Amino acid sequence: MKIIVDAMGGDHAPEVVIEGAIAAIREYANTEVVLVGDEARIKSLLVKAGYCADKISVYHASEVIEMSESPANSVRKKRDSSVVVGLELVREGRGDAFFSAGNTGAVVCAATFSLRMLSGIERPGIGIITPTLKGIAMIIDVGANIDPKPMQLMQYGIMADAYMRHILNIANPQVGLLSIGEEEGKGTEFVKETYGLFEKSKLNFIGNVEGKDLFSGKCDIIVCDGFVGNVALKVSESLAEAMQVFLKRHIMSNPLGILGALLLRASFSRFKKQLDYSEYGGAPLLGVDGVVIIGHGRSNTKAIKNAIRVSKEEVERRFNEKITEAVRT
Amino acid sequence: MKIIVDAMGGDHAPEVVIEGAIAAIREYANTEVVLVGDEARIKSLLVKAGYCADKISVYHASEVIEMSESPANSVRKKRDSSVVVGLELVREGRGDAFFSAGNTGAVVCAATFSLRMLSGIERPGIGIITPTLKGIAMIIDVGANIDPKPMQLMQYGIMADAYMRHILNIANPQVGLLSIGEEEGKGTEFVKETYGLFEKSKLNFIGNVEGKDLFSGKCDIIVCDGFVGNVALKVSESLAEAMQVFLKRHIMSNPLGILGALLLRASFSRFKKQLDYSEYGGAPLLGVDGVVIIGHGRSNTKAIKNAIRVSKEEVERRFNEKITEAVRT
Repeated sequence: MKIIVDAMGGDHAPEVVIEGAIAAIREYANTEVVLVGDEARIKSLLVKAGYCADKISVYHASEVIEMSESPANSVRKKRDSSVVVGLELVREGRGDAFFSAGNTGAVVCAATFSLRMLSGIERPGIGIITPTLKGIAMIIDVGANIDPKPMQLMQYGIMADAYMRHILNIANPQVGLLSIGEEEGKGTEFVKETYGLFEKSKLNFIGNVEGKDLFSGKCDIIVCDGFVGNVALKVSESLAEAMQVFLKRHIMSNPLGILGALLLRASFSRFKKQLDYSEYGGAPLLGVDGVVIIGHGRSNTKAIKNAIRVSKEEVERRFNEKITEAVRT
Repeated sequence: MKIIVDAMGGDHAPEVVIEGAIAAIREYANTEVVLVGDEARIKSLLVKAGYCADKISVYHASEVIEMSESPANSVRKKRDSSVVVGLELVREGRGDAFFSAGNTGAVVCAATFSLRMLSGIERPGIGIITPTLKGIAMIIDVGANIDPKPMQLMQYGIMADAYMRHILNIANPQVGLLSIGEEEGKGTEFVKETYGLFEKSKLNFIGNVEGKDLFSGKCDIIVCDGFVGNVALKVSESLAEAMQVFLKRHIMSNPLGILGALLLRASFSRFKKQLDYSEYGGAPLLGVDGVVIIGHGRSNTKAIKNAIRVSKEEVERRFNEKITEAVRT
């Protein structure tokens, strides 16, 4: 099992990516990592980290796509970037999966060009896993496809259903369509048309769900267009952070607060852990003909390690074959 | 000053609405409330509450629009509902403002038909106030107009700017357009076209903002279409509630948790208060030719009282005249 990792992607790359890769090969058996990027820099960081075994190799790529660059342009121009080169290695069969915490748009774009789509799937979608009051849920799409067709949302539902069944072992996952009211007639024309497709599908479709159901645990899969999904995801991150700041401010302004906070330290730390995206690893880019996992730009060592684990699981369980079967039937 | 209140609207109506009205006329000088709805029931509840002064009157309406009813249909059919009758009282000049915590869609629909639009405004928008790390912000629209034109979003920006200046006393408010990236070229065609209009406007436009900026305090006004805004609002409510449940679970599973929580009781209560929509009263329906405030379905006594205060302020400060002036220039 060989996971190709974009060593240059993410806010704390390459240092944190390298640490995450080392943590992964130490924890997971039968796993090798190929770090793609600035060879001299990566090798010196590996030496610095005291790593000298043979389960991590380095593949040189001279360019880096920055977080702020336009996806399509940068992928076209920077043919020797770690993203483009890493995905080519997967296409050529020299690696089993690709992970990057870099420019999400560029990864989506390069993966689509390099790997092409799975048979029966029109566009890729990013599915993220979030904690809910009853467990976890997948929200798809959170930004790969901001102007989708109803049929593409339908395909996201089928792929997420396969992901929940085969990767997360959830039997018969419930699928909801994100709208602004639960009744069938609620929402834009786009939502209504998509509703009709889901209703006729074999999925365990429960109808429209609302923004309030993202964390309620009402269903296991929430399907939406990439614009709305991206806004919802970033609103959640922003609110979770703001709430932690608000709470801290109130605690610190209270004379008994610091003592109380000390007593609650273990609770707060479990609370933060539950909200921490890094526990869930990266988000799969579903629909491309290859395993691609996208990490949060702020990924820390643990997030990188977990993302490598998720990549490995998708490969081991032959996940893309499951999608192709599901689409065919 | 006479505020027309839909006594039958909201999850806890009419009891809580009546309590809120009593609290409002006790706290705010020169304010009268007209409760619209089932006269016999309202009067008996007023007697039960021990209220017998003359600052609250009752206006009979025999029908109620339920929360789940289709807005357009219910407004057309239930001509003697508290929503339709209450808005007619404002149209006829028999009240200065209308408040309802009932079916939002029905209020938007009936207000548009009854009061018509302000000159220069095409569609009404619901603006809500949220707490941010730096203070507060208005998000507009959160559900009145789910398929708007770029020019209508532009008008929401102008109205929200007037609201921040004249009602919330924020000088030169910064306006952001909700998209999925900060750069000018990011987002759907609809967002790009809207961006162009804002750029040419007199507003203090800071460009695109992302979902993460809803609570960061990056700008004072966030403009978006009603579908995205509604999802974002409900995601926030859902996450805030889920986080409180998560935190409680972690605290209760910790032997020292209960003692710590007791010491932090004051902090937790201020924290909850900061997140509590009822502190901010209702959300103004901007753009109709009359003052209309929409409350959360779950409004409690305090929320109703605060919404009556907000209605009063909009009337006193001749807010709609400010909008008409702003649109004209």
